Amino acid sequence: MSEPVILLDAGSGGRASQRLIRGLFFKFFSNPILEEMDDAARLDLSGPLAMSTDSYTVDPLEFPGGDIGSLAVHGTVNDVAMLGADPAYLSCAFIIEEGFSVALLEKLARSMAEAAAGAQVLIVTGDTKVVPRGAADKLFINTTGIGRILVSRPPQGKNARPGDAILLSGTLGDHGLTVLSSRSKLNLSPRLRSDSAPLNHMVGALLRGLKEVHVLRDPTRGGLATTLNEIAGQSGVVCVVREDSLPFTPEVLAGCALIGLDPLYLANEGKLICILPPEEAPEALEIMRRFPEGRQAAQIGVVLAPGEQYKAAPGQVILKTALGGERLLGMLEGEQLPRIC
Amino acid sequence: MSEPVILLDAGSGGRASQRLIRGLFFKFFSNPILEEMDDAARLDLSGPLAMSTDSYTVDPLEFPGGDIGSLAVHGTVNDVAMLGADPAYLSCAFIIEEGFSVALLEKLARSMAEAAAGAQVLIVTGDTKVVPRGAADKLFINTTGIGRILVSRPPQGKNARPGDAILLSGTLGDHGLTVLSSRSKLNLSPRLRSDSAPLNHMVGALLRGLKEVHVLRDPTRGGLATTLNEIAGQSGVVCVVREDSLPFTPEVLAGCALIGLDPLYLANEGKLICILPPEEAPEALEIMRRFPEGRQAAQIGVVLAPGEQYKAAPGQVILKTALGGERLLGMLEGEQLPRIC
Repeated sequence: MSEPVILLDAGSGGRASQRLIRGLFFKFFSNPILEEMDDAARLDLSGPLAMSTDSYTVDPLEFPGGDIGSLAVHGTVNDVAMLGADPAYLSCAFIIEEGFSVALLEKLARSMAEAAAGAQVLIVTGDTKVVPRGAADKLFINTTGIGRILVSRPPQGKNARPGDAILLSGTLGDHGLTVLSSRSKLNLSPRLRSDSAPLNHMVGALLRGLKEVHVLRDPTRGGLATTLNEIAGQSGVVCVVREDSLPFTPEVLAGCALIGLDPLYLANEGKLICILPPEEAPEALEIMRRFPEGRQAAQIGVVLAPGEQYKAAPGQVILKTALGGERLLGMLEGEQLPRIC
Repeated sequence: MSEPVILLDAGSGGRASQRLIRGLFFKFFSNPILEEMDDAARLDLSGPLAMSTDSYTVDPLEFPGGDIGSLAVHGTVNDVAMLGADPAYLSCAFIIEEGFSVALLEKLARSMAEAAAGAQVLIVTGDTKVVPRGAADKLFINTTGIGRILVSRPPQGKNARPGDAILLSGTLGDHGLTVLSSRSKLNLSPRLRSDSAPLNHMVGALLRGLKEVHVLRDPTRGGLATTLNEIAGQSGVVCVVREDSLPFTPEVLAGCALIGLDPLYLANEGKLICILPPEEAPEALEIMRRFPEGRQAAQIGVVLAPGEQYKAAPGQVILKTALGGERLLGMLEGEQLPRIC
């Protein structure tokens, strides 16, 4: 007997769609808001709000440490949290290629549900499209998240100030290298794992425990280097990073050396950059380290005014290398690895 | 010289992504919230809220009366409005196939921006993924919308009551038949046009002008028949529709007769079903007819209690045919036409 697969009519809006929604998605995502089954979900939520969207096209769909389902929850939860918000609700839209395995869809939906429970968010509304074979590669998931902003002056990319400390919540490059290794079947190391994790609980603790947080951002596509470039540009400042302060797992360092990738440009899915006044840094690091995904949190650099020390222009990022040199760390040029998230 | 196309690096999160976002999307979607360029958009919006999501995979991307861009705005705006809400903000996520025409992307972004302006909603946050050639068919767009619910007892699918009137805001089948005709190059009629339109202004007028609206829903995928089945099921009632009251354009009637499609199952993208107490029906029709897309609004049926007249069970929909007969109108079985929206 052949394995059950998703047929085109599951995206028709008719009876087969209802079967898929009630028989599969509701089994995992069930909550009173979703079950109203209206065109829109009714939410008792008041602002100011943060809203963020991401489509997930990661290849392969499953990798050590996660899958497209958990990633689609963590990624959007984290983007909402970075604006100083408490993510509460997610929408979830599937684009499924005809012939996709029902068993795998069920496994991925279960993973999404578990990730949502871990992050304490509800999936409240959704959409399912099925496209003919060849019109999409297996499965894409879009999630859009909203949540209430917790502080009156939320952290934003434009708020970095000269003198601020730059903190990082943990090791770099784990997600990017894991996906690359899975996709290419390089099997770089059996210990490589994506860092995919929800950061909203850590963000909540930071905002409650600290007087002032200027910037929060998760260094996903483009990695630490690109994200710091964005922040430096938005704030009109210079970021200086000390290479010997950057945390890595030995597996990522070895893997990157082997295949010639710069881990500063690899995607992370469970790490955040936190920029804040230097006097707040010790307390912030202590808070981060209370969380499993923050155990290796470290101060990795400082924010300077343009021209203050290195003749650097606003928006530039400088790496102080372990050997005592300095080099400009640009934004990611070209594409290191498509379909990383 | 070859035409400029989207390359993989435009989805990298690096410099090429920034160029695409600033150079193309910002040109059309520009507003102060979007331009903050943070991971999430900051919205001053207080609840209760309606939230809805849809991914658009329509093929072809352009068709008479609209394109994937305008459709992605209208479809989500309408779903938010159907919960009695005033859509305010949209997120917008693109999945682009490598090699997609820059000129066409620009044209579609312009169309989205015009549709958003027409509906008076802002596109406040977005995402762009570029997947390798063959991993997606040209372009998919997800939009997620939120807005404030305008009434204390919002219209919902479960609220239809025996005795209620069933109103329809205009002709049926225009979107579905137009997309089918464009895709298959049937050229059924030069006058066929999608009805894609924003319904939020009409919904606002209905909610302000009427004492009570029980159900609002737009009969998109699966058409009028499937949507009425959903409502009848949610409310535990029977819907009776009079065939000779249903509005159609002559082009849709002729086209459906020619190719053997039932227009009651064809998708609409600018029509709504409104179910409300019969004494409110005349005023509701008058309000609908003030809008260009509501000129052919009509009462098309009534809601009955199960067993009241036709031995019908809760959730059933009965069509009184023009010849005086009756037949059960089931939910869409199978898939009439994939990638209709």
